[in-house]
Amino acid sequence: MRIFGDMNSGNCLKVIYAADFLGLAYSFVPVDITKGEAKTAAFLAMNDMGQVPVVALDDGRFLAQSNAILRHLARGSNLLPEDPYLVAKCDELLFWEQYSHEPYVAVCRFQMVYLGKPASERDPDKVKRGEAALDFMEKRLAGRGFFVSESLSIADIALLAYTRLAHEGGFDLTKRPNVSAWISRCERALALAPARTAI
Amino acid sequence: MRIFGDMNSGNCLKVIYAADFLGLAYSFVPVDITKGEAKTAAFLAMNDMGQVPVVALDDGRFLAQSNAILRHLARGSNLLPEDPYLVAKCDELLFWEQYSHEPYVAVCRFQMVYLGKPASERDPDKVKRGEAALDFMEKRLAGRGFFVSESLSIADIALLAYTRLAHEGGFDLTKRPNVSAWISRCERALALAPARTAI
Repeated sequence: MRIFGDMNSGNCLKVIYAADFLGLAYSFVPVDITKGEAKTAAFLAMNDMGQVPVVALDDGRFLAQSNAILRHLARGSNLLPEDPYLVAKCDELLFWEQYSHEPYVAVCRFQMVYLGKPASERDPDKVKRGEAALDFMEKRLAGRGFFVSESLSIADIALLAYTRLAHEGGFDLTKRPNVSAWISRCERALALAPARTAI
Repeated sequence: MRIFGDMNSGNCLKVIYAADFLGLAYSFVPVDITKGEAKTAAFLAMNDMGQVPVVALDDGRFLAQSNAILRHLARGSNLLPEDPYLVAKCDELLFWEQYSHEPYVAVCRFQMVYLGKPASERDPDKVKRGEAALDFMEKRLAGRGFFVSESLSIADIALLAYTRLAHEGGFDLTKRPNVSAWISRCERALALAPARTAI
């Protein structure tokens, strides 16, 4: 398998986290989105959506959209529960992540890390919605180890990628103890070095 | 099954389309989102994301997020291909719909239908991205009957709901013949009365 992506993109890191956890062999092919490398004819032939990540599966076929890739790689593994209802609850969070979390938490980070803006110049509406997304996670995690079942699932991986980098977008994780403890729990399950989450 | 939703919301209509196609028995419970009915304590006890649609399954458990509901209801039906790769290609479009289509095509319609704005006062960035989403669909549909396989899938249903209403958001479908023909094809497969798609 080849993974085409950008190691600064949480959407790409999700795929790396899952592939490493599952022990899948892959090569990583860097794509610099800031230089338009996801919009070239060669890239669009792999993914006409013009976004990273994309994976080239072992049979040569391509698959895009980080959470669709997670869903595909995790089939039959312990990253997806066996109960179809719990699988659906994973899906619920995967869609919520792309609609209500990533466009705010990740985009604020983009404004600071890629565009060099100070926290005070982030888009106020995106800040408000990003704070709401993190507050939702804090509430959901009360009394829970992971989001859907007793162990790590793709819902955790999808939410972890940008949440553990949220401080780079000006969000304060230290006032969200459930989220902070869950990040550490995921990092241990994935054998990741802890991110410095204080701002 | 009970479906809690708003018949003006494409996200809710997706679930209705799929349930009707599959011949599932359900009752519909109206929720008026413009009156804050998705934010009451009773509603949040069903779905702490505070969004419609939500379904109460026959065993009493709840499931939210339109595309997660589609994914769950379609298991084992002919709305999902048998090939796991084609299922993943459905997922790819489900996530693309929520990230790159709904926030622009549906939100422009919201600005006109719910907020009463004329087309000229829609958010220009959302108009531009909505046009790009419809252009993407027009290209993808060249030479194809449906998005993923030879017959209707949940990817078509997810994309159909807001696309057939796009003219209500000021988008011109008449200049997109592949999309227009696909809408008619989906309407026939779902036995829906044709929407008036001209603007």
